[in-house]
Amino acid sequence: MHLTKLTDYGLRTLIFLAVKQSPTSLNELAAAYGISRNHLVKAVGALRKAGFVATNRGVGGGIVLAKEAAQIRLDEDVNALEPHMAIVECFDNHKNTCPIKGACQLEKLLYQARKAFFKELQKTSLAEAVLPHQQNLKKILIV
Amino acid sequence: MHLTKLTDYGLRTLIFLAVKQSPTSLNELAAAYGISRNHLVKAVGALRKAGFVATNRGVGGGIVLAKEAAQIRLDEDVNALEPHMAIVECFDNHKNTCPIKGACQLEKLLYQARKAFFKELQKTSLAEAVLPHQQNLKKILIV
Repeated sequence: MHLTKLTDYGLRTLIFLAVKQSPTSLNELAAAYGISRNHLVKAVGALRKAGFVATNRGVGGGIVLAKEAAQIRLDEDVNALEPHMAIVECFDNHKNTCPIKGACQLEKLLYQARKAFFKELQKTSLAEAVLPHQQNLKKILIV
Repeated sequence: MHLTKLTDYGLRTLIFLAVKQSPTSLNELAAAYGISRNHLVKAVGALRKAGFVATNRGVGGGIVLAKEAAQIRLDEDVNALEPHMAIVECFDNHKNTCPIKGACQLEKLLYQARKAFFKELQKTSLAEAVLPHQQNLKKILIV
């Protein structure tokens, strides 16, 4: 059971932006986390598409949060970043080959479990996750 | 967000055994679901190791449930089958490279979300998931 690297790196990007609170470059993000700039390009692209970050060009430009950190809920981030939510094959009607789809209750039960996962994340905003620890995070991430 | 094929096929195996209620061969399982026998070998191996199924050799032998279906909870199945539970990199201490581990609250929040996922599955036994639909499932799976 796992989330993709895209989601992991997208969440790290949001944390960095919430901590730094000023425009940030991809190079800065890549250096802070020691991860590939290419992976970050995709994660930032997905976050921009979902309206969580904006990119300002020119002098003093960079990636910034497009909403207040208090308005960004963690379930929405993961939902926007994770490329597919098909926990098992039958969640994807186009790919399903399982003959018991429809008669089988497992699909419904796994849906409920996935819902419970996101309901838990929904409780917390980016601000609530980051701000109480901002000083510690700043020391590690921002040079 | 997804579970591996191993888990998917393991769950299908348990459903088949609960529906059929008599010794079953790998070929029978593979034919019923139209999936590779090789993948099923691994899933059945994992289920046997976790004590959910037993394999009886000889005439009339085959794979059977090693417990009553009412005693098999779905959270335990998924836990036993899923090869790793590291939702994101920092869940695995040996592989983690993220510098904010410890200062970051996301790990804790994702743990709670994963816990909520399994708590939801814990509510239902294999018997509760299968038996009310046994006749329908039998028509599809057992020839």
